[in-house]
Amino acid sequence: MYFSLLQQIESPADLKSLSDEELQIIAAEIRLKLIQVTAMNGGHLASSLGATDIIIAMHSVYNAPVDKLVFDTGHQAYAHKLLTGRQTEFDSLRLFGGLSGFIRKDESPYDVHDSGHASDALSIAMGLALSRDIDGRDERVVALVGDAAISGGMAFEALNQIGHEGRDITIILNDNEMSIAQNVGALSLYLTKVRSSRPYIQTRDSIESRLSSLGNPGRHLVEMGERMRDSAKLFLIGGTFFEDMGITYLGPVDGHSITQLKQVMQSSKQIAGPVLIHAFTQKGKGYLPAEADPELFHGASRFTLSTGQFEAKTEGKSYTEFFGDALVAEAEVDRRIIAVTAAMPKGTGLDGFKQLFPERFFDVGIAEEHAVASAAGMALGGNIPVVAIYSSFLQRAFDQLITNVSLMNQHVVFCLDRAGLVGEDGTTHHGVFDLAYLRTMPNMKIIVPATGAQLADALHTALRLAGPVALRFPRGEAFVLDPPDDAASAAGAAGAADTANAASAAGTASAASATDTANAANVTPATGATPAPKLLEPGKAELLRAGKDVALLAVGRMVKQSLLAADKLADQGVDAAVYNMIWVKPLDTELLASLTNYQLVVTLEEGTLTGGFGSAVLEAMSDIGSADSVAAPRLLRIGIPDEFITHGTTNQLFELLGFDAPSLAETIRQAFDRNTAPKYSKTILADSQS
Amino acid sequence: MYFSLLQQIESPADLKSLSDEELQIIAAEIRLKLIQVTAMNGGHLASSLGATDIIIAMHSVYNAPVDKLVFDTGHQAYAHKLLTGRQTEFDSLRLFGGLSGFIRKDESPYDVHDSGHASDALSIAMGLALSRDIDGRDERVVALVGDAAISGGMAFEALNQIGHEGRDITIILNDNEMSIAQNVGALSLYLTKVRSSRPYIQTRDSIESRLSSLGNPGRHLVEMGERMRDSAKLFLIGGTFFEDMGITYLGPVDGHSITQLKQVMQSSKQIAGPVLIHAFTQKGKGYLPAEADPELFHGASRFTLSTGQFEAKTEGKSYTEFFGDALVAEAEVDRRIIAVTAAMPKGTGLDGFKQLFPERFFDVGIAEEHAVASAAGMALGGNIPVVAIYSSFLQRAFDQLITNVSLMNQHVVFCLDRAGLVGEDGTTHHGVFDLAYLRTMPNMKIIVPATGAQLADALHTALRLAGPVALRFPRGEAFVLDPPDDAASAAGAAGAADTANAASAAGTASAASATDTANAANVTPATGATPAPKLLEPGKAELLRAGKDVALLAVGRMVKQSLLAADKLADQGVDAAVYNMIWVKPLDTELLASLTNYQLVVTLEEGTLTGGFGSAVLEAMSDIGSADSVAAPRLLRIGIPDEFITHGTTNQLFELLGFDAPSLAETIRQAFDRNTAPKYSKTILADSQS
Repeated sequence: MYFSLLQQIESPADLKSLSDEELQIIAAEIRLKLIQVTAMNGGHLASSLGATDIIIAMHSVYNAPVDKLVFDTGHQAYAHKLLTGRQTEFDSLRLFGGLSGFIRKDESPYDVHDSGHASDALSIAMGLALSRDIDGRDERVVALVGDAAISGGMAFEALNQIGHEGRDITIILNDNEMSIAQNVGALSLYLTKVRSSRPYIQTRDSIESRLSSLGNPGRHLVEMGERMRDSAKLFLIGGTFFEDMGITYLGPVDGHSITQLKQVMQSSKQIAGPVLIHAFTQKGKGYLPAEADPELFHGASRFTLSTGQFEAKTEGKSYTEFFGDALVAEAEVDRRIIAVTAAMPKGTGLDGFKQLFPERFFDVGIAEEHAVASAAGMALGGNIPVVAIYSSFLQRAFDQLITNVSLMNQHVVFCLDRAGLVGEDGTTHHGVFDLAYLRTMPNMKIIVPATGAQLADALHTALRLAGPVALRFPRGEAFVLDPPDDAASAAGAAGAADTANAASAAGTASAASATDTANAANVTPATGATPAPKLLEPGKAELLRAGKDVALLAVGRMVKQSLLAADKLADQGVDAAVYNMIWVKPLDTELLASLTNYQLVVTLEEGTLTGGFGSAVLEAMSDIGSADSVAAPRLLRIGIPDEFITHGTTNQLFELLGFDAPSLAETIRQAFDRNTAPKYSKTILADSQS
Repeated sequence: MYFSLLQQIESPADLKSLSDEELQIIAAEIRLKLIQVTAMNGGHLASSLGATDIIIAMHSVYNAPVDKLVFDTGHQAYAHKLLTGRQTEFDSLRLFGGLSGFIRKDESPYDVHDSGHASDALSIAMGLALSRDIDGRDERVVALVGDAAISGGMAFEALNQIGHEGRDITIILNDNEMSIAQNVGALSLYLTKVRSSRPYIQTRDSIESRLSSLGNPGRHLVEMGERMRDSAKLFLIGGTFFEDMGITYLGPVDGHSITQLKQVMQSSKQIAGPVLIHAFTQKGKGYLPAEADPELFHGASRFTLSTGQFEAKTEGKSYTEFFGDALVAEAEVDRRIIAVTAAMPKGTGLDGFKQLFPERFFDVGIAEEHAVASAAGMALGGNIPVVAIYSSFLQRAFDQLITNVSLMNQHVVFCLDRAGLVGEDGTTHHGVFDLAYLRTMPNMKIIVPATGAQLADALHTALRLAGPVALRFPRGEAFVLDPPDDAASAAGAAGAADTANAASAAGTASAASATDTANAANVTPATGATPAPKLLEPGKAELLRAGKDVALLAVGRMVKQSLLAADKLADQGVDAAVYNMIWVKPLDTELLASLTNYQLVVTLEEGTLTGGFGSAVLEAMSDIGSADSVAAPRLLRIGIPDEFITHGTTNQLFELLGFDAPSLAETIRQAFDRNTAPKYSKTILADSQS
């Protein structure tokens, strides 16, 4: 019977009576379950395999949910879900309506905080410990944090206060020397030295006694050490860094020995003040394909369990791949280009660049603030840094974007992958705020390419502009748009002043072609071939489809959705023009000024409606209206509402939000019908004429 | 002759030939100059006095501007300005049109980067060093960073890469054990131990030889140390923290001995890879009043040189003081309240709270990310954290606001002091982005009180709401608004549905009173008395002045400006209503829906126009219009344009931006005239009716 022991665990309390051997069996069963489910659903397999034994030991030793177990990032905590009453739902991991791939407060009373962004567990733990002590509660606060996450700046800020306050907090450092990519940074190097230099579980007492046994000179050294500070700590190389911070260091221990882990966790309870337990683990532990290539199995897509082979990719070339290829091509001809990533060389498509130009490639680790500020330094030195960070992680560097880059108007190119809805990683990973926050920054330029080829154009352009430029593009397959038909193309070429007229002129042809279902086929998956990149004119939109009733102004993936919706609208007798706006800043204000003939203008974006692209259009139209005393056309903004969005496939989320073509067409048609209905009695004009 | 030596220094090259004694005279002359100018203009006196000798030594040893001298925060670098060709302009320090109080790239070729926000110098230096090495340039990169700034998370991220890369970078740690407030955190404690435990300039060689002299056991230890890692470093307590990071540690040295400083800087040139020079200084050094109370002289206002007495305060009670008093009153009755600051206990008005409730007060140091995330932990523990951080510094915690607080909808109250224009500290310190960035966060509520009493009401309300709430208020004197007159008050009480009618009804009375100049006097400075705070209704604006032509929707200090402008508009025959909107999120949508009778609606905010309060109003009006097919009234948005704003007094900056009452009245009247002129030929309605 599979999972015979695991199935008996309804809550962590059931672990307490089990022997270490039984716990080991549970560990094996959990690992099998993790492999089975992630093979079906994808997920953070390697990290969760690596942390399984630690999590079993934690739930054996501590008393959750009274004791607070805080998981940093939360991608490693699948075992925690299985041990806290979620076995039956576990097959739904990362699926729409199912369990989250991260820790979610609302999912279980055992989940302390919503996780997803690295390096926050120590801060959450500090807050919980302070709250506990102020209220006089009797509970332990335990944080599990990886070696990559602990190098993030916020984790250091937390360590700084944890050491200073001296309150009871247990930090378990899950050190797999790997994290997402191969770990980087001085702290990582230090931890590696610890690993290579010390037998496991070497106590300070044993060293101290060894020293004393050296006779007088040895004793003198011990006394000298004590006089200087914390006795023999000086001789325990493993602990100096953390002990310098005022945190008792225990370990290192074998992070796959449940027996050792339980022992050290039990002993740590006797120590007053903050304690760090240093556990070495192997990422991917227990599944050979993941042990062999843990980076590949960090955030894995579906794979075949027996072989570890990932399902053959049926999609075309991704935006990420277009970006990686385009950057390599640019870097070959411009030696000033430097690539910077924060622990995501592969995820951001920089692995090719890294291979070809290692001397111009820098992975700073999970350190987005430093990534952005150091890029400003590179730009000051005359280079052109290209900073590739996922949209939602770049939020960490908001102030650096303003203060270190935009203020000095430095030429740094930001490439935001995973912009918009990311799918199964869900809430914390959706890149929905970027357009809203980037456009508030003076000097910033924002390009949102719609296709893979346009992404290459955007990068080509960004590298040749001055000051900061941000490109944002989504996860997954890039689309190729057929060139617009001649009429629309001519309208686009005619310039913005004539666009509205040209669009009207082109309307007939467009409406005719709209009845042709082949029109929808102008959205096709990308092939591998990439044309030579061309310069994009700043603040210049492109007309993809002419139409006289409604103007759809779209960015990014919503360009494709708009074209599909326009076909549906045509079926309903509404003639929609579709513009790929490309630039969110500067906006195509000439185009916007020319839209007064439309009954309705619609903005479409895969980003927050609050302050996003649609708001930029509103602002520009309001300003134009204010200056010219021309009433702006009615505007309908379509985008992400003012709430956090769950996980699921991108298609499921598009449907949830009404971004699928039928829903878009329906929403737009209803707004159009409202606007064209004759009920203007309350308008300004009615008043001023009455 | 005063400044006889200093005046001969036209550039750092002139220092190179001087003796140490002459450099000491220059140090004295610089200090006198700093005291004289800050006594007149205010400024960061204590830090600049403390860093004077280090800066003289830097310019004696290094070859700027070829060598890159990077100043963290830049508030300590006044001596650098005096030594790099800016003596004649130095009297204009911090004045409108004069020298910046910080380092400004555009001010001098010796200024490497725009500074102002702490902890960025090491990242800038790392970027410069990478750029240098890639291009093969021969230049030194030297960063001067304080002990408080180095505890910021970004500085640690930079140290992590600096240690990892091993490139030539010189870090000078200016350790005054004080920084802004008394320093906090484990690293600070560690540095203090170094200070108390070691003679200055103790070399590792001397310890290593002492160990070897112990005979075999000693030699064995040395070998053991070497085997483990970097030999005798283990025995040098001062360096372990930094040497663990892979950074050679030199020091500590006396940061006021130019001779010692020059020596250690010269020696550091011989060491390959990153070096940290640890220099102890005294904040305020050389001016007894500043030595006695360095916190008072951190960011000093004008004072009398001979006595160090600050000019008698002529202003009324500040917003900061209202906040501090109100929080103490609330904390007396609600023990769940915790106050959190990031190195600004005094600046944020929390010093009273700190005295009364030390067990509930936490200063986390310059660590805004951790401040916000740990507050989320406190809220998870059932407490109500009040996080008081200046508006522009809270930018550092943008992601934590979203991911750690808003996502979990935790009840954390953010009190953003220095919101809007801060005056002389200028560009990096203006808090102009907060409304735009806070309102994009789901679950966030934003209150902008106009008066000191309303700030107390806002805090009272925020503590009783659920989820995250932000209050933002400016630096300086709080204003008291007389209660609205009876007619307007009745209109406000009548509810939003009737507001427009009531406003029209009240119009006559208002227009009549507008001719009375006493009307302007309803804006009066605050007295000390504070009424008992009352609950504000979420999303409810208050009508302060009725009027039928134009509706002015204002927040914060712009409420006062709007009332003054309304008086001027009345003189010109334009009858303006003035609303204190109070809430930016949620907005008073009922009120907005009722404004269709106005020819013009104007939003007024002390924040960026890009995505700010005015955009929120635009969005709401567009949504209302889209739903009801009602044309929204023309909107004029007044606020901070899409550029960085210089330093000067707040009044000067208000005039620069057209926020003074005469300019506002003129801008509004022109827009009103445009709107009421009969030229609607291009509107939708004209088209749809034709």
